[in-house]
Amino acid sequence: MDISEIGKFALLDGLNAGFEARQQTTIKTFDNASVIAASNKPKQVCSAVFLEGIHFNLVYTPLKHLGHKIVTHAVSKIAAMNAIPQQILVSAGVSSRFNVSDIESLYEGINAACAEYGVDLVENNLTASLTGMTVGITAVGEAAEENLCCMTGAGTNDLVCISGNVGAAYMGLQVLERERRIFESNGTQPKLDGYNYVLQKQLHPQARIDMLKTFADNGIKPSSMTDITDGLASDILHLCRKSNAGVRIYLEKIPIASETFAVCEEMNFDAVTAALNGGDDFELLFTVPIYEHEKIKSLSGFEIIGYITDNSQGAYLVTPEGNEIKIKAQGWTSVTG
Amino acid sequence: MDISEIGKFALLDGLNAGFEARQQTTIKTFDNASVIAASNKPKQVCSAVFLEGIHFNLVYTPLKHLGHKIVTHAVSKIAAMNAIPQQILVSAGVSSRFNVSDIESLYEGINAACAEYGVDLVENNLTASLTGMTVGITAVGEAAEENLCCMTGAGTNDLVCISGNVGAAYMGLQVLERERRIFESNGTQPKLDGYNYVLQKQLHPQARIDMLKTFADNGIKPSSMTDITDGLASDILHLCRKSNAGVRIYLEKIPIASETFAVCEEMNFDAVTAALNGGDDFELLFTVPIYEHEKIKSLSGFEIIGYITDNSQGAYLVTPEGNEIKIKAQGWTSVTG
Repeated sequence: MDISEIGKFALLDGLNAGFEARQQTTIKTFDNASVIAASNKPKQVCSAVFLEGIHFNLVYTPLKHLGHKIVTHAVSKIAAMNAIPQQILVSAGVSSRFNVSDIESLYEGINAACAEYGVDLVENNLTASLTGMTVGITAVGEAAEENLCCMTGAGTNDLVCISGNVGAAYMGLQVLERERRIFESNGTQPKLDGYNYVLQKQLHPQARIDMLKTFADNGIKPSSMTDITDGLASDILHLCRKSNAGVRIYLEKIPIASETFAVCEEMNFDAVTAALNGGDDFELLFTVPIYEHEKIKSLSGFEIIGYITDNSQGAYLVTPEGNEIKIKAQGWTSVTG
Repeated sequence: MDISEIGKFALLDGLNAGFEARQQTTIKTFDNASVIAASNKPKQVCSAVFLEGIHFNLVYTPLKHLGHKIVTHAVSKIAAMNAIPQQILVSAGVSSRFNVSDIESLYEGINAACAEYGVDLVENNLTASLTGMTVGITAVGEAAEENLCCMTGAGTNDLVCISGNVGAAYMGLQVLERERRIFESNGTQPKLDGYNYVLQKQLHPQARIDMLKTFADNGIKPSSMTDITDGLASDILHLCRKSNAGVRIYLEKIPIASETFAVCEEMNFDAVTAALNGGDDFELLFTVPIYEHEKIKSLSGFEIIGYITDNSQGAYLVTPEGNEIKIKAQGWTSVTG
């Protein structure tokens, strides 16, 4: 059977089931990160590999930015559990087309991100590769048990919130891809002036560990949380599936930056599609119990975009006219007209 | 500069130096694994990526064996710190040439190894790949602080010991490579009968977590330890470098299985070269203070093969005739005749 027929998450569920029966690890596994110690301050560990040609294109991604972004990705997964990132481990596979100065650039970006996020690189491996660059990264973080947020905790009527805005990183990628195609067809140098915001979001994104302070300062404990890396639609569906819940998202509440709208208009691209399906936003998507509404409505840095429903009510976008559109992981289609 | 000019470990040292000044992580970093919590039972984390064509050849490596071996590698690194492996995290990149049943075979091996070593899979990611299979793995383990062994602790006159025997996995690989070449040149089916031992060591190696029980039962605390994955020569040099020490290894004391000798003779390959430079042995190489000699000399499962010297005395093999041969990471050359 082809993997696309079964789908990644269903395949993973099947694979994981073969392990879960025997597990001794206590708190939480197969979430954004895994919680591995039932002490007062459990450790979270998350891990990912990044492959050239799949996750990044070195034609327009400087190695320094790549290093920074890979750390951002790992740190973001720890932050999505409301935990403080502390350490990272890196394993890089590099083919002979990379020289020492290339590797140093990669690590310059890794180092800058470590300094920015206050994390330590504690292990570092290099290996040969036949086919370009592969970077494996693991991050470790810590949280008091009562602060931990998982993807499984969303309850009916909880408010769905999102930090920052979405879709900008995706439109930054569209600009880079367009300029690459033009360069490859006629040698015209890329024109990147005027796209600073979306390019910054694509090439130098930030993990939202600042939101952890917002939560702590205001006594907010999200009932569930994830970060947006696959796209808002895919990630909200993943969270709903993990929490066995449905959702209603108000289309007009989804935060999209004016710079993103401008690039969408220029490129004749639907901004809502970019916001829903574009990945790499690294924003936090979280739910808060409805009784916290008074507490959160005056806070800045995030928006309330909808609410959790019973699982039987499905996952839908609500248009300003009150129509409901089923949320799909890739693309979205109207079911009500 | 080409990476081969500077060498992997020197490049890593340079890269790591840029991080070490700022580190807050307390106990031990950049060892076989990293020790990340200064509690009574610190956690160790290690991480690696495995790339098709570099670390494994799927022509003769069944995916199930690959899954098992990758877990063995990660568990072995934790065992090399005298710590109990507890959890693993897996991230696999797979190209479209692999189907669901292939992935299930890979995970069947991962699952078998988890059961064997008593570790839990706590995170599991799949991603697309353009170029074959890549598997990133992270292992987490635990040890009481007083039991932790690092690569840095070898002291002058400590006895150098090695578990099991070395070179068999390498000769298993030579058999597989020979049969592959014959098959590719004239279609003759591989003849693998009679090579069980070396093939088992290559395709289904075991991490030596049983040695941890030997240490615990006999009250032995190695002063330093590592596992043999790059080859005895490379790994002893790495341990000496980390401990700022020299070493003398008695050539005739290096344990080589009779099955390995037989394959070497058949293939006209020098057994000592296989033992020194062949990788993937997953045996433990450790040092023990000389005052423990009485305690360890009667124990089975490992051999004393030499002793640690002052760094100024270099790293040498000693032949039965008393000649000294400088140990090199790849190959070895006589300096005394």
